[in-house]
Amino acid sequence: MSAKLKIGKLVVIGTGLIGGSFALALKRARAVKRVVGVGRTRRNLADAVRLKIIDEASRDPAHAVRDADLVLLATPVGQMPAVMTAIAPQLPAHAVVTDGGSTKRDVIACARRFLGGHIARFVPAHPIAGTEMSGATAAFAELFSGKNVILTPQPETAAAATRLVRQAWEACGARVVQLEAGEHDAILAAVSHLPHVIAFALVNMLAHRRNPGRLFGLSAGGLRDTVRIAGSSPEMWADICVANRDSLLAALEDYENELEGMRAAIECADVIELRRVFAAARGAREKWWIKKRP
Amino acid sequence: MSAKLKIGKLVVIGTGLIGGSFALALKRARAVKRVVGVGRTRRNLADAVRLKIIDEASRDPAHAVRDADLVLLATPVGQMPAVMTAIAPQLPAHAVVTDGGSTKRDVIACARRFLGGHIARFVPAHPIAGTEMSGATAAFAELFSGKNVILTPQPETAAAATRLVRQAWEACGARVVQLEAGEHDAILAAVSHLPHVIAFALVNMLAHRRNPGRLFGLSAGGLRDTVRIAGSSPEMWADICVANRDSLLAALEDYENELEGMRAAIECADVIELRRVFAAARGAREKWWIKKRP
Repeated sequence: MSAKLKIGKLVVIGTGLIGGSFALALKRARAVKRVVGVGRTRRNLADAVRLKIIDEASRDPAHAVRDADLVLLATPVGQMPAVMTAIAPQLPAHAVVTDGGSTKRDVIACARRFLGGHIARFVPAHPIAGTEMSGATAAFAELFSGKNVILTPQPETAAAATRLVRQAWEACGARVVQLEAGEHDAILAAVSHLPHVIAFALVNMLAHRRNPGRLFGLSAGGLRDTVRIAGSSPEMWADICVANRDSLLAALEDYENELEGMRAAIECADVIELRRVFAAARGAREKWWIKKRP
Repeated sequence: MSAKLKIGKLVVIGTGLIGGSFALALKRARAVKRVVGVGRTRRNLADAVRLKIIDEASRDPAHAVRDADLVLLATPVGQMPAVMTAIAPQLPAHAVVTDGGSTKRDVIACARRFLGGHIARFVPAHPIAGTEMSGATAAFAELFSGKNVILTPQPETAAAATRLVRQAWEACGARVVQLEAGEHDAILAAVSHLPHVIAFALVNMLAHRRNPGRLFGLSAGGLRDTVRIAGSSPEMWADICVANRDSLLAALEDYENELEGMRAAIECADVIELRRVFAAARGAREKWWIKKRP
């Protein structure tokens, strides 16, 4: 890290889990003087003020950004067009804008369309962290400690803007990785977006059976962990699925092919093949995961 | 619970996670005098003796059961025919036999075929507990504390035998539930067997992509929890999938229908429908699960 980071005014648009935790982490690092939080509901903003996540609350993004140094867009990705349209005319010339969206190509396209000349100081970013909880009350300063944050700067992104955003995330304790936006979207479709769809589908399948109370009552830790992320925000995940549609559909197709292979082996009671594919999965999980995360 | 349980000689066939934990829990409750463990590999049996899970090791189930009071069959379900065939001629007339198999109709059919007259003292059982770990070293006395154990006694099962097995599981700290065997298998297919197949399929899909190291490296807690159970024993799960084939295929079909609905909504970018189905899943998870498990 280079010289000590000091952000004058940070504006967080969307003071939920991600935006709130970013503000808390930067405050803890003494890297920011003042935080203004923008949100849609008075109640969530009141929580954010009470919990000292933000110093001031606003329901008007255009007004809030007028003297901002750094702006984090941390709303569901479906709200990006409206938010960018609102803030673009009011952004100071020096302000750096970044986002926390789970998809990157669509947010970049949106920024190109709605941020005008500010596109040179827009740094697309995605912190790979979260829980199944939503809202300001879910935020905590340690959320990004040791987690990856992916930046996908574009040819027109000013190096100084990318540097500032990198420093901010590093001050939050995160590890910053740069990727091409399309690669980001393909990877996240596979490791995050698809698992969420799977968890939602599995819970709905159980809920639609007779006597779901008994079903859930007789389940154990395996199911509990598998469907934890089905507690995630429906609004946010609907937006992500649509924004990253092509990558997600490709990942879903690959997954359905794997499942279809297993279904065929189950149908013909092919124990040998089932052992083989299950052992392959166990081996991959150990090789790529367990050993990498001591 | 009625009078204090005292089992003279317990024989555990398959001294892995379930069999080992059952032995440890009964020892902790001082409900058993002596435990003989039967296994296939010298190394696992040596671990079980060293960890004081069993008092004596044997690789011959027929010999081990000759003076048994209670026998727990805790092998993968695919080994039940061979084990039952081996022990049936040697079982004392008073010995009660139970099992820990994850499927019940097939184990019952197997017991009817191979246990002969001992069928009246065979109590089909399934402890709904486990981890993704296997083997004696994974066993611990608290595994069944507060967990459900399902008994599926048959018309010919002697009430005294069911009572003994119930008492043994209660001594392990478990809550005992009685169910019809077919209902057990349908429920477990949905809440346990299907989630395992899903986890194995998801990991294989990721492992078959280009650069799986980068994929797993950029994943977060959501995927980690979703695929934890993909670390489970391939042999055990292949047996379960085949043994409970019809119930599992029915659950898989229901799940694929849910997934297909979501895929269609993603394809046509139907944000409203996606929000609806995701919110339904989140609501069901909260209603049936979170509130039931404070």
